Amino acid sequence: MAVFTARCRKVVVGVTRLPSIPLLCRFSSTALSSTSLASAMGIKTDKLERFRVLFSEKSLVNCASIEAYVLPSTDAHQSEYISEHDFRVKFLSGFSGSNAFTIITKSDALLWTDGRYFVQADEQLEDGWKLMKQGLPESTDPVDWLVENFPANTNVGFDPQLFGYAAGVSLVEKLKKVRINAICSEGNLVDRVWQDRPAASDAPVLTLSLEECGELSSDKIKRVRDSLQKKKCDSIVFTALDDIAWLLNIRGADISFNPVAFAVLVVTLDEVALFIDQKKVSDVGVQSHLSHVKIHSYGEAATYTSNYHRNLLEKSRGIHKMWIPDVTNYFLGSLINKDNAYVAMSPVQPMKGVKNAVELQGMRNCHIRDGAAHVQFLVWLKKNIDAGKAVSELEAADYFEKLRSQREKFVSLSFDTISAVDTHSSLPHYKPGPDSGKRVIVKDSVYLVDSGGQYRDGTTDVTRTLCAKDHPDPDFKKMFTLVLKGHIDTAMLKFPSGINGIRIDVIARKCLWDDGYDFGHGVGHGVGHFLNVHEGPAGIAYRTYKDEGKIMKGYILTIEPGYYDPSRWGIRIENCYEVVEAKNLKSGAANYLTFSPLTFVPIQKNLIERSLLTPEEVSWLNVYHADCLEKVGPYLLAHNMDEEHEWLKEACTPL
Amino acid sequence: MAVFTARCRKVVVGVTRLPSIPLLCRFSSTALSSTSLASAMGIKTDKLERFRVLFSEKSLVNCASIEAYVLPSTDAHQSEYISEHDFRVKFLSGFSGSNAFTIITKSDALLWTDGRYFVQADEQLEDGWKLMKQGLPESTDPVDWLVENFPANTNVGFDPQLFGYAAGVSLVEKLKKVRINAICSEGNLVDRVWQDRPAASDAPVLTLSLEECGELSSDKIKRVRDSLQKKKCDSIVFTALDDIAWLLNIRGADISFNPVAFAVLVVTLDEVALFIDQKKVSDVGVQSHLSHVKIHSYGEAATYTSNYHRNLLEKSRGIHKMWIPDVTNYFLGSLINKDNAYVAMSPVQPMKGVKNAVELQGMRNCHIRDGAAHVQFLVWLKKNIDAGKAVSELEAADYFEKLRSQREKFVSLSFDTISAVDTHSSLPHYKPGPDSGKRVIVKDSVYLVDSGGQYRDGTTDVTRTLCAKDHPDPDFKKMFTLVLKGHIDTAMLKFPSGINGIRIDVIARKCLWDDGYDFGHGVGHGVGHFLNVHEGPAGIAYRTYKDEGKIMKGYILTIEPGYYDPSRWGIRIENCYEVVEAKNLKSGAANYLTFSPLTFVPIQKNLIERSLLTPEEVSWLNVYHADCLEKVGPYLLAHNMDEEHEWLKEACTPL
Repeated sequence: MAVFTARCRKVVVGVTRLPSIPLLCRFSSTALSSTSLASAMGIKTDKLERFRVLFSEKSLVNCASIEAYVLPSTDAHQSEYISEHDFRVKFLSGFSGSNAFTIITKSDALLWTDGRYFVQADEQLEDGWKLMKQGLPESTDPVDWLVENFPANTNVGFDPQLFGYAAGVSLVEKLKKVRINAICSEGNLVDRVWQDRPAASDAPVLTLSLEECGELSSDKIKRVRDSLQKKKCDSIVFTALDDIAWLLNIRGADISFNPVAFAVLVVTLDEVALFIDQKKVSDVGVQSHLSHVKIHSYGEAATYTSNYHRNLLEKSRGIHKMWIPDVTNYFLGSLINKDNAYVAMSPVQPMKGVKNAVELQGMRNCHIRDGAAHVQFLVWLKKNIDAGKAVSELEAADYFEKLRSQREKFVSLSFDTISAVDTHSSLPHYKPGPDSGKRVIVKDSVYLVDSGGQYRDGTTDVTRTLCAKDHPDPDFKKMFTLVLKGHIDTAMLKFPSGINGIRIDVIARKCLWDDGYDFGHGVGHGVGHFLNVHEGPAGIAYRTYKDEGKIMKGYILTIEPGYYDPSRWGIRIENCYEVVEAKNLKSGAANYLTFSPLTFVPIQKNLIERSLLTPEEVSWLNVYHADCLEKVGPYLLAHNMDEEHEWLKEACTPL
Repeated sequence: MAVFTARCRKVVVGVTRLPSIPLLCRFSSTALSSTSLASAMGIKTDKLERFRVLFSEKSLVNCASIEAYVLPSTDAHQSEYISEHDFRVKFLSGFSGSNAFTIITKSDALLWTDGRYFVQADEQLEDGWKLMKQGLPESTDPVDWLVENFPANTNVGFDPQLFGYAAGVSLVEKLKKVRINAICSEGNLVDRVWQDRPAASDAPVLTLSLEECGELSSDKIKRVRDSLQKKKCDSIVFTALDDIAWLLNIRGADISFNPVAFAVLVVTLDEVALFIDQKKVSDVGVQSHLSHVKIHSYGEAATYTSNYHRNLLEKSRGIHKMWIPDVTNYFLGSLINKDNAYVAMSPVQPMKGVKNAVELQGMRNCHIRDGAAHVQFLVWLKKNIDAGKAVSELEAADYFEKLRSQREKFVSLSFDTISAVDTHSSLPHYKPGPDSGKRVIVKDSVYLVDSGGQYRDGTTDVTRTLCAKDHPDPDFKKMFTLVLKGHIDTAMLKFPSGINGIRIDVIARKCLWDDGYDFGHGVGHGVGHFLNVHEGPAGIAYRTYKDEGKIMKGYILTIEPGYYDPSRWGIRIENCYEVVEAKNLKSGAANYLTFSPLTFVPIQKNLIERSLLTPEEVSWLNVYHADCLEKVGPYLLAHNMDEEHEWLKEACTPL
């Protein structure tokens, strides 16, 4: 599809913002250009200083002047990956990690992020910024930090679109308890000082046929309405972009890697209203695909929601209830009276999580093509190393992308390729930069490549850690094997249906813990079907607990334990798995689940310290490698990749 | 101590209730005798019918008539074990399990309980009651059941003292959302129809010296005040009885097994106010021990709290904040304006959880004496079985209690002994009744005994499953070994300090899950120091998640996996463990923890299928048994229990 580029990494895309719509606390005002302001006041024009000048621009913050501004790194849809147009935190702080929460006060600029990003934040944060580490025993939550550091009657500003409803309510209430006023800003204050802001995207949407997605949009909407009625709701407002894409069987190109389009969707018992930039849906085929949907411009979402609510309040004498998914932006959610809001996880999350037969088959198929491209890449890399030809991180990532892009149904990468040599590989979310990416992969290197593709029939995500050394370092082999054990033990696990992922996260860590090692990220996440590579509601992780994070049959989860030594290297071994029924149990129980691999790429055998594996683990690995050959081998042969097939055969011999 | 009896199981104790104090929704009224009411109305006089008559007694329920009454099985202190005086659910339904939540409507009487009690509830529930199973995929939460089954504008009554603050707020708000009114009743409605209600206890409290508890009450209170100031609070109200007992270094005898006294405690920055029946603290020694505390009568707690709040509101111009531990009863918590309440876990929970050096030494000492009594019991039982003398469940429990009561510093049992033969052992919380307890232990029996003692220096809790058969059933041996593997694997685990117990619960289940087996209770719970045998804040369990459930060094936890086959037998193997530092890790990490056994009672070796154990598991068991002999052996010899020492030596030989 033309709207998707094979080099998403470099494409600047964006978002049409919700226009300013009067909110309880919002005032219309004429925005002052920040530069004119700064020069008029004769002060330093550095970004933070120019930003802080706005704190006393009362017209921007509900007639108040504020002492601090709270800015999470997300967009009006609470997206994890955001467009450059929305990357305010990166503009203001220099930090480009996907998880960031900032508080800018008159004297401080603080950025919270987690263990994956501590090193990166240290390197990227500009002058005037301080890193606040999350997830350590001594860590303070940003809102608690405000509570502890500000006196009563302080005003703190925030952009209500950048908070999910539950998070926004919690922010306002926690601050209210200590008499700090959380005040909605007029638009986002950062935008007032952001001169070279990237433009918004206007890429058209594409549609998925029934053969591609397995269920008509109208049937999905029927299921949503059934959910509404069970909870006595008459309507629901969606701002999560993957919920909307799944429900309507459409895909977009407004954010790199996540094939979604900026939109809001309201489903009532008798109407489906889509709010989207009209240009994106002007194609006749798209119009026909969306014939069951009433299309409005993106900016009308708030007025429509508010009017619907008011009308129904009157008609129902106050009894009507609207489902507000907990991640709906706080701005939209606040338009509904609290007593009429049913706040809970979106009903689409578990529906979308359970892949139907067509989606599962698509996932299986695209993983074979993706596996073939991976084998091509590994063979190419080996040949270069053997020939003493130094390949840089960036070159490797580019070549891998080129190979993927030649496979059928390829659309884009599913995230920025992590192509990391030696110490770079110890940064779980390392991204080769223009300079850092020049580091080369040689025979002695530890090389970690975490990558994935978006195909019209599915999404992939796979990590391999490699080393071409003839005699790999015993220390490295030991840690590689401990990580592999954790991966295999999780993959072999049988567990009752519907348990929460937090309960099985330890399986991949246990053998690391035995020696006092650990890794700072979850074991696995959900994966969408030609949708977000990180998808709810379930994962295998420990950091937060959600009652709704139950693992069900038909979910796709990654398993990706790791180990990171900042002074040497990092290791991660990641596959995608289908959650399937565990059969033939001795108890006869029928409600047990286990994992069946989707990813079929060999794991480098000479990095494994065999004596550390149990017989069961060796057997799992041998079966896995036999499957790799059986699944990907025929594809390679059919596509004249004989050399790759030879390599694969050798890579898949028993350990 | 005279206030404690060695036969707690049969002692009827009770509680002085908070007198009726006007609450927002409370009316003073003259209570009608339910019998006169019933006979005046000429209707059936069965308990439920007599109870339902009160639904339209408007003077009892805030001038409203109600459609249902919500009745959890607890007391005004949210105690898990309650006195007979407070056992309203048992009076009304017949069910005597420790976990129950009931809703009585005009047509239905529903009782919710968990998997431990399904069989017991089926047997005990009287006519007119229906069991609602908790913890199954299809289970409905009681409040959700109300939401789904009652129309708007219905009135539902409840006793605000029987809800923790957080639970009460949640009840009221959830119902309010669907326009069901939750209305506080005038006292508890059950009490109006409970003619032969057991009397309240007036047992005096005892005090612990510094040598017995390791920290002065005044120092503990200083730590509480430090916590208050960190959260900008000026006061806190405690209703949790073990929090109060720990803070004041006192113990009571108002509830069987839990050595606590009914009391409320308010700590402000300059006062400590204890509300307790004056008779219980009239002793001169107690008065002197409590010289740092201002003693009021139990009934004054609400007036004092309310007055303190009002005074401080005025003085502070509204900024004052009171810490309301989330389990404080809703009645007391509601006296504080919402904006002035800081609702969170009691700061005493983690303080009390971490045992100091004196407490730890006491726990170690009492476990040796308790272990000796256990060995005596096992030898006695063996001799009886060998002699063909049938011992009943009740006789065994009584004799075990007698043996314990002869050990130094014995105070009482720490809970009702579970003495269970064959199918009875498959009920995790079975208690031998007058009839059921006649079942005898013979050579072929599977016998499970879960028991513990309260000693002045600590609390014990231990389960052993036994079988005297020469050739135990292979099926039984297999399941016994799987349970033992889960126990040992958990006991051997090394894990980072401060992780949540839910993360390691799977370790004890993994080998059961492999065959599709599981058990319906947690792996372990905290244990108090001469206090409640179930103690927060941490446990090893999966059912609920609390952010505060972090496992820290110095905590005492049980490990007690099980397996239950209702048609045959149950298995549980339980020890108490001290959470200690894990030393000499390869990584050099210093923040890892592991478990060190406190319980030293051999595990019956001929029930173990050795081939199912790993070499590490065998080694753990052999070291454990060697420790049993080393710790308990000398005590037996010193107390002239030579026969028991011989038996122990044999029981502790390597596997």
